[in-house]
Amino acid sequence: MKKILIVFTLFPFLLSAQNEDSVFIRKIANEALINGKAYENLRYLTKQIGGRLAGSPQMPKAEKWGAATMQQAGADTVYLQECVVPHWVRGGADKAEIVSVDNKKQKRSLDVLALGNSLGSGKNGVTADVLAVSSFAELEQRKDEVKGKIVFYNYPFNPTYIVPGKAYGESGVYRYTGASRAAKYGAVGVVIRSLTEATDNNPHTGAMKYNDSFPKIPAAALGLKDADYLWQICKEHKNVKLSFFTFGHFLPDTTGHNVIGEMKGTEGSNSYITVGGHLDSWDVNEGAHDDGTGIVQTIEVLRLLKTLGYKPKKTIRFVLFANEENGARGAEKYAEQAKANNENQVFALESDEGGFTPRGFSFFVNDEKIEKIKAWKTVFEPYGASELIKGFGGTDIEPLNTNLHTPIAGFNPDNQRYFDLHHSRGDVFEAVNKRELLLGAINMTALIYLVDKYGL
Amino acid sequence: MKKILIVFTLFPFLLSAQNEDSVFIRKIANEALINGKAYENLRYLTKQIGGRLAGSPQMPKAEKWGAATMQQAGADTVYLQECVVPHWVRGGADKAEIVSVDNKKQKRSLDVLALGNSLGSGKNGVTADVLAVSSFAELEQRKDEVKGKIVFYNYPFNPTYIVPGKAYGESGVYRYTGASRAAKYGAVGVVIRSLTEATDNNPHTGAMKYNDSFPKIPAAALGLKDADYLWQICKEHKNVKLSFFTFGHFLPDTTGHNVIGEMKGTEGSNSYITVGGHLDSWDVNEGAHDDGTGIVQTIEVLRLLKTLGYKPKKTIRFVLFANEENGARGAEKYAEQAKANNENQVFALESDEGGFTPRGFSFFVNDEKIEKIKAWKTVFEPYGASELIKGFGGTDIEPLNTNLHTPIAGFNPDNQRYFDLHHSRGDVFEAVNKRELLLGAINMTALIYLVDKYGL
Repeated sequence: MKKILIVFTLFPFLLSAQNEDSVFIRKIANEALINGKAYENLRYLTKQIGGRLAGSPQMPKAEKWGAATMQQAGADTVYLQECVVPHWVRGGADKAEIVSVDNKKQKRSLDVLALGNSLGSGKNGVTADVLAVSSFAELEQRKDEVKGKIVFYNYPFNPTYIVPGKAYGESGVYRYTGASRAAKYGAVGVVIRSLTEATDNNPHTGAMKYNDSFPKIPAAALGLKDADYLWQICKEHKNVKLSFFTFGHFLPDTTGHNVIGEMKGTEGSNSYITVGGHLDSWDVNEGAHDDGTGIVQTIEVLRLLKTLGYKPKKTIRFVLFANEENGARGAEKYAEQAKANNENQVFALESDEGGFTPRGFSFFVNDEKIEKIKAWKTVFEPYGASELIKGFGGTDIEPLNTNLHTPIAGFNPDNQRYFDLHHSRGDVFEAVNKRELLLGAINMTALIYLVDKYGL
Repeated sequence: MKKILIVFTLFPFLLSAQNEDSVFIRKIANEALINGKAYENLRYLTKQIGGRLAGSPQMPKAEKWGAATMQQAGADTVYLQECVVPHWVRGGADKAEIVSVDNKKQKRSLDVLALGNSLGSGKNGVTADVLAVSSFAELEQRKDEVKGKIVFYNYPFNPTYIVPGKAYGESGVYRYTGASRAAKYGAVGVVIRSLTEATDNNPHTGAMKYNDSFPKIPAAALGLKDADYLWQICKEHKNVKLSFFTFGHFLPDTTGHNVIGEMKGTEGSNSYITVGGHLDSWDVNEGAHDDGTGIVQTIEVLRLLKTLGYKPKKTIRFVLFANEENGARGAEKYAEQAKANNENQVFALESDEGGFTPRGFSFFVNDEKIEKIKAWKTVFEPYGASELIKGFGGTDIEPLNTNLHTPIAGFNPDNQRYFDLHHSRGDVFEAVNKRELLLGAINMTALIYLVDKYGL
């Protein structure tokens, strides 16, 4: 009995309000599924603008499109928030080939992509024998063999984790820090097994970072079929000589923008709810699931609330963050500005796990708040996002949590397919399903509505 | 307190057994995700054999492959169960075109597929003015206008249902009965809006049935872009003349087979658990999600239980049903034989909703059983199939329920993408994701294990 009483006093929405909420969320769903614009918006962003890394010519086009699209969706106001962004360019067509095996000429080209932020080999390439290791532990054991070699990290993307993000977390460190860890022992280049378990051979790029204490050696990713081949041949032969050519370099930092739309709150306070995704993407694809879907879902949340005539208590900010992939500078600027303006950032939500069918949300909040949130489970159940758990919010909203203690949440789609295409050439519009995309937007809208109405 | 006591006495597995079950199911998952054969088996079935309608040359190839693959997967015994199957053939390349608008020549070709079981127009085609209606209600209202016309049913696939199967159920009746309902009033042909809300223009075939009281007129499905175009032009103009050419006809019934593998039960009783999918598919695609995935998941359940050394109490039957798409004759034969042999069919499970990421299972069982089943929820939660609800079992196992009162269940993947490709050219191997497919097999294996161990 006690538990029931607590529930009723803490969560008034469970009473008649729950029915009212269900009715409103049903309207949200109908509007999205009949008139939803997210899919056609995504088509434009991916097909007409395309990949849009910070500093690229596509960046300002995407910003302009984002501002215009939020205006059309009914934002009360739209503005750009300037921020300094890095400007890394790939600089050329990455390529690699096995040159010789046991000093006998044996050409075979391998499909590679330079890692983001890596400095290229230039046109002379880097050519050396390969030291193939399965892990950092093996690298350390064999550190005396590293000098003058290309280190090949073949660390697997663990298929047994049911949540693929866990495998990504584990193997991501090879992409991010592998080059410098090998350079420390004199390696001249690094290739990694792509962070995927896709059945194709597409290499997957993504950010890396050099440790300034060691030489900044070229670094690239191999698709899985080529990684398997290289691993096998390295196991069977003493000397496998590899050449690879990458051309990455940094241009001077440049100016980018967070694109921000607002629905003004009726309370007129300095309180905000933030919902967003990131507008930038890698250069090798269309940035569809990463994170075009988060962008068009964010705009769809705005459109849905406006179309249905919802009057939010708090001002809702729809933020297309400038630079997640290789810097998070948009995120930092937004939090910095919010702090400078002494904003009460009540809650922030990001969609940056792909536009797949909804499973739930993960909340980076305290125990009291998660209990309150879990009482909303039945409201989400008909629409798929009923797994309301503690967990990661999102890279672009983390600084709000760090600096302003904002409760944050990430939209969790079912992302079994995500790492098949994430950061690879495969992340294109055609990989997105219209209904799955819209269902995500519906659940995000429902969450924003509930948080605005009941607080957190 | 009372409720808790009931739970503990009814569901002993909730105690230490639950941990033992979790450990075993984790082993199932690891084996599937590391060594799973379902995806490569599906590649063979779809790419080397392809579409395999009952009576087609592919049918015996698929049967032979199914038997050999179950043998390899470790079945104690594999055999074929003969049954009579219908033998409908498409007979040629379906085509359609708008011939004239308001008696002015205006050619435009439309993409069509004859409905399965429909009788073709033959090479002279059927040419007539179109009567476009949005529903049977409109057909009835306008029945005096039907004579000599081609009736076009433009009944929409309702996008607002969150479960797309509900829309399929509602609009399916136009495909199944539309021809005869129009023929009753003198129509000379029927075209329908395909049962989909796909963004492409692929027509979707599927079974129809004539009412013997009326002329058996040709019937075909239009893709959505063409359906929208035809609807629009029919709204704007009085006379729209359409020609279409289909060639479907029946050859004499022929012999097909249910392919059955068994794991012998340690109890040695006449009790069986059945798990299966259907081996046949439509002729226009590779039968990947419908129902190649159900077939390879069924075989994967067998492989997993065998590989892990599980000794079932009941005999488990793995059944690749002969003929679901246009007859259900395999299903009928299996139930008939089970009844004739006085088998105790304890439980039957079918996977025939696509090989997408798991959501749960729907059980066609009584209230007492569903409560018992729901207590297994936590076991499924880590693997995705935790929505354990009452609902549809499966076409191939329904006769077991009807004739032997067998509790039956259907595997429920997240099928937001299903009706985009179901019965269309798009249902090919490439539309299946390896992890999603394997996760389905894992959850199916877990359910079979729990039912075998604890009964139902």
